[in-house]
Amino acid sequence: MTNDLPRIYLDNSATTPIHPEVASAMSELLIRCYGNPSSIHFLGRESRIIIEKARKSMAQALGCSPSEIFFTSGGTESDNMACRCAVENLGICRIISSSLEHHAITHVLDQLHKVHGTEICWLPNDPQGILDMNQLQQWLKESRDLNIPTLVTLMHGNNEIGNMLEIEKVAALCKAHNALFHSDMVQTVGHYPLNFTEMGLDMASGSAHKFYGPKGVGFIYIRGGLSLGAMMAGGSQERNMRGGTENLPGIAGMSLALELSVSSMDQRRERISRLKNRLKEGILEAIPGVTFNGNIKGPTMYQVLSVSFPPHPKGEMLLFHLDIEGICASGGSACSSGAESRSHVLNGIGMPKDRTAVRFSLGSHNTEEEIDRTLHVLRKILLDAS
Amino acid sequence: MTNDLPRIYLDNSATTPIHPEVASAMSELLIRCYGNPSSIHFLGRESRIIIEKARKSMAQALGCSPSEIFFTSGGTESDNMACRCAVENLGICRIISSSLEHHAITHVLDQLHKVHGTEICWLPNDPQGILDMNQLQQWLKESRDLNIPTLVTLMHGNNEIGNMLEIEKVAALCKAHNALFHSDMVQTVGHYPLNFTEMGLDMASGSAHKFYGPKGVGFIYIRGGLSLGAMMAGGSQERNMRGGTENLPGIAGMSLALELSVSSMDQRRERISRLKNRLKEGILEAIPGVTFNGNIKGPTMYQVLSVSFPPHPKGEMLLFHLDIEGICASGGSACSSGAESRSHVLNGIGMPKDRTAVRFSLGSHNTEEEIDRTLHVLRKILLDAS
Repeated sequence: MTNDLPRIYLDNSATTPIHPEVASAMSELLIRCYGNPSSIHFLGRESRIIIEKARKSMAQALGCSPSEIFFTSGGTESDNMACRCAVENLGICRIISSSLEHHAITHVLDQLHKVHGTEICWLPNDPQGILDMNQLQQWLKESRDLNIPTLVTLMHGNNEIGNMLEIEKVAALCKAHNALFHSDMVQTVGHYPLNFTEMGLDMASGSAHKFYGPKGVGFIYIRGGLSLGAMMAGGSQERNMRGGTENLPGIAGMSLALELSVSSMDQRRERISRLKNRLKEGILEAIPGVTFNGNIKGPTMYQVLSVSFPPHPKGEMLLFHLDIEGICASGGSACSSGAESRSHVLNGIGMPKDRTAVRFSLGSHNTEEEIDRTLHVLRKILLDAS
Repeated sequence: MTNDLPRIYLDNSATTPIHPEVASAMSELLIRCYGNPSSIHFLGRESRIIIEKARKSMAQALGCSPSEIFFTSGGTESDNMACRCAVENLGICRIISSSLEHHAITHVLDQLHKVHGTEICWLPNDPQGILDMNQLQQWLKESRDLNIPTLVTLMHGNNEIGNMLEIEKVAALCKAHNALFHSDMVQTVGHYPLNFTEMGLDMASGSAHKFYGPKGVGFIYIRGGLSLGAMMAGGSQERNMRGGTENLPGIAGMSLALELSVSSMDQRRERISRLKNRLKEGILEAIPGVTFNGNIKGPTMYQVLSVSFPPHPKGEMLLFHLDIEGICASGGSACSSGAESRSHVLNGIGMPKDRTAVRFSLGSHNTEEEIDRTLHVLRKILLDAS
């Protein structure tokens, strides 16, 4: 590990560097606005105003009403809350999902099955990670015919392979079959234009640190009229939907980060797409036998490139070699990188065991020079030694 | 509301102003350490080191092993996790608690009763809020004799009336009867010398913003060997005990706040106790018929004074009058102040409806001048007008 190397951060799906304006606003609020937003005195009211302003701004950015946005500690809590409360408070008995979801979904579904006996239906997928929509329709039809209260939870953008769901189509399908629809949108909030109301969602999850905001704060969108109820029981915060003193600097930081991300979205997308293409073309050109994971023909996220490198003596240690050269990338999801040798998503798409996956995920700060250096380093590791 | 009045903040049980050193450390980390602690590259490892350093420091301050500290989003999550996982993962069928607990406990117990049919035994208390220890012993004996897996959850320091539990005694009682013991220590962590191991606790909850740390982060202590399991299912963070990308600046801020609080504890306690006495004596002298809520003879927290003012035309609006004069205090718990006319704790000790409760909770920044001005304002409101 060479500490004075310029770092090239290509792990933006794991987490993004915070926007300097966001950090600066939070630093000021940490000191100045310490009142408990539930307190009725001046300092409490001042804090309350900031929180409600943040809620309004986020609702505007996401095409919904402020009363449909609830602040949480992050995407994992929002995902847990959506699934758990649907079962415990809305009488959901069947949940249709996919094994390619984030563990914040798959593991809570395992819990619900164990604790409540909830039936979990795992949608099959093909080697490109494309979900079987016919099976979804068939299960939804069965749910409607047999009157089984059903929730569908499918992520908008896959964090490992970048596949994107045809979300409006799934939402319409759910609606037509009286099923609820939740989407983990942790990877797309702030990166894609979203209008929750028009998209026909019942619930959605988001996390600030994926769009240049702070860690430790997120939100859940709950369509008006849906009485999901609280997972975190306690004080009457968030209109009784989430107990616990509000993380004021985090909430204000998240709302500012979303504003900034939305306002620079088109420009960022264009820029990052170009860089991703440069990286993809460069890899294709340099490395014989390389392929890419995920949906090849359909829509994938512009910021994620999941590469499948052919068998190579340095394959297993590729990430470490990249790290030594100052390049930050990951094998799959960061959340599990300490735990498993191979991610459940890569297993789920049946990626051959002798190939090596590297997820490059790009951000607003990346440059052409960084991409070129990454290509140079890849060639050095994989070609010079062979 | 006069904005240029010097504010006197006497609501430190609701939340404390952040320590400037903590805010400054967090501001730096927000920018510098953005790597996901689960990432295996340099930036991830750098973040991981900070988190584990914080865990070690906290464990040292709290008399336990680093492996017994798990980071959460706050006291509410920790309380929910302790109770919920005890029922769902440890087979607890009976929970003994008190209606004077924080809603983060009472409301999750209501949930568990509703969802899992858990038997909830509410300990009676007297008008001073002292719990019936004979009843506790009787229930524990019954649990042991009938082999009912039982959890006792009782807070260390009551946030509204300041009563303190004889925690070692309760811990010993639980141990003798094979019951688990959890304590909500949100009000005492950082304010009292604590040694979780010696105290004989199985679980404890803490929240950073109650000891001059940031909002949105807390911890749960889980005694080694107790397989509580996760409430928040997701990634393998916190050794599979709490999914979700770690709130690094919050965690580091909490650990620094605890270090600072512990190192200045004796001095602060002496200083705040003196100020509280000054306030108490002054109120007793000035206001005929005034009394104090909570345990009169036994131990109460040095930082909390819950006053019961006699019937008065301005009684109902007393907090508002104080606020107009720049004095921040609360009626009971801040968490419910928007929601109810009267707190469940004040109802629980049978406080007469025609009297007015004001909780003054003191902090490290308060001064004699502030106490004297508060006394002056109280006299002005309650005596000049009558």
